Amino acid sequence: MNKPETALLALRMRAWVSTAGAHIRHHIHDPLQVKTKSSRVDLVTNLDKQTEKSLISAIRSEYPQAQIMGEEGSGDHVTDLSGLVFFVDPIDGTMNFVKQKSNFAVMIGAYENGHPLVGVILNVMRQELYWGGPQLGVFRNETPIDHVSPLALPDGLIGMNAGMFAYDRYHTHQLFKSCSGVRMIGSAGIEYIQLLEGRQIAYMSHLAPWDVAAGRVMAETLGMQLSRLDGHPLDMVTSGDVLIATASTDAAIRTIALAATPS
Amino acid sequence: MNKPETALLALRMRAWVSTAGAHIRHHIHDPLQVKTKSSRVDLVTNLDKQTEKSLISAIRSEYPQAQIMGEEGSGDHVTDLSGLVFFVDPIDGTMNFVKQKSNFAVMIGAYENGHPLVGVILNVMRQELYWGGPQLGVFRNETPIDHVSPLALPDGLIGMNAGMFAYDRYHTHQLFKSCSGVRMIGSAGIEYIQLLEGRQIAYMSHLAPWDVAAGRVMAETLGMQLSRLDGHPLDMVTSGDVLIATASTDAAIRTIALAATPS
Repeated sequence: MNKPETALLALRMRAWVSTAGAHIRHHIHDPLQVKTKSSRVDLVTNLDKQTEKSLISAIRSEYPQAQIMGEEGSGDHVTDLSGLVFFVDPIDGTMNFVKQKSNFAVMIGAYENGHPLVGVILNVMRQELYWGGPQLGVFRNETPIDHVSPLALPDGLIGMNAGMFAYDRYHTHQLFKSCSGVRMIGSAGIEYIQLLEGRQIAYMSHLAPWDVAAGRVMAETLGMQLSRLDGHPLDMVTSGDVLIATASTDAAIRTIALAATPS
Repeated sequence: MNKPETALLALRMRAWVSTAGAHIRHHIHDPLQVKTKSSRVDLVTNLDKQTEKSLISAIRSEYPQAQIMGEEGSGDHVTDLSGLVFFVDPIDGTMNFVKQKSNFAVMIGAYENGHPLVGVILNVMRQELYWGGPQLGVFRNETPIDHVSPLALPDGLIGMNAGMFAYDRYHTHQLFKSCSGVRMIGSAGIEYIQLLEGRQIAYMSHLAPWDVAAGRVMAETLGMQLSRLDGHPLDMVTSGDVLIATASTDAAIRTIALAATPS
């Protein structure tokens, strides 16, 4: 896709995500139908499903040939990344949405033949829209974001998945002692925003492709590193343990996380 | 102190804290002098110290007989709680202030002969002021907050101190499995706000009197429970491991946290 086509795609994705966010804010105090998925704490609501359907319908009307992977299953069963592929997370951080009515995001990532094209993340309640890609740059609303945190590992905060931290997976306790502190937000989208804003230097969690996709486009555009910690390649079709880190901390974090024995 | 006198005190505390917040926002991008205190990650900046001095000076000008305990040491050495006592935390969450430029608070708590009188917490960057006390009720800016989360333990989120969670102190891993999830913000003031807003059901951390004071006034006014987990009474002159929990979860959390052996 050339630059004007990519710009048009970005404009459309911004509009779709903004419309979805406005809809969610309008219904934020409505009674919710909450169901569990893979576990007691893996939630989905009627608003997640409804938002996903609206987003997929909007995508299909403009890009009928595209493949779409959606968190709530209304999309395609994507197994290869040929052509244009959209990753849709209608409400990222559904637990926060249900319990806090804040700290959740709407996200869409667009890839072409496996290459990052455009990512959009909306902090729904704060109405802050992060968007961009390698051809366009990265923006908060209309403000360019052109640098990332230059901090070294000892001077930065790391966002972590609660289970990974509790059970010391990937030597997260050693990382905790090696950095300035650990934070836990409960939404991959909001964690990505912390990275884009330079408020944190890294984020480690077990993530699905729709968790990774939008933020990956922007993080890589700004020179951040993404990798799997579980030995698998970052493939955008399977879930796994993912590290997103600034260029100045990625190597140091990986050295500790992947050490054969705790140091 | 009677109700009109308490109202006047609340108005003054709101004004002092708001002025401090405006000053911090004005200087948010200034170069900071950052120093460490008890450890590598226990920070203080020139702005913490300057803000504390301004707050203490304002308090002294109106209440010259009061005792004042300040985080950064410009106050009195308070050992008994007789008379009017102010607890001042000029920047709560200094690490967040330095690294994130968000998620920090200015807090003042006022007690009379050890009894909670007025508490004020300002989320500085969001300009949300939480204030109140047993005689006045609790408010976000001018909006009354009159109920707390009714959720039971399995349905609520718990804010936790990172070290307490990493090393399974007070069976925090069992609590993690028993609740809906763990969050880590890095500021006692912002954690208190999550409780006041009904976004979380509890908060567990190692806290000093200035961390506890302002939020305690409002949390207890709303019927929440505060207790020490380390066997000491909640005395407002020493630091310790503190649990703040909603009435509907306090007993369940304490049963797990204080069990003799992990369940």
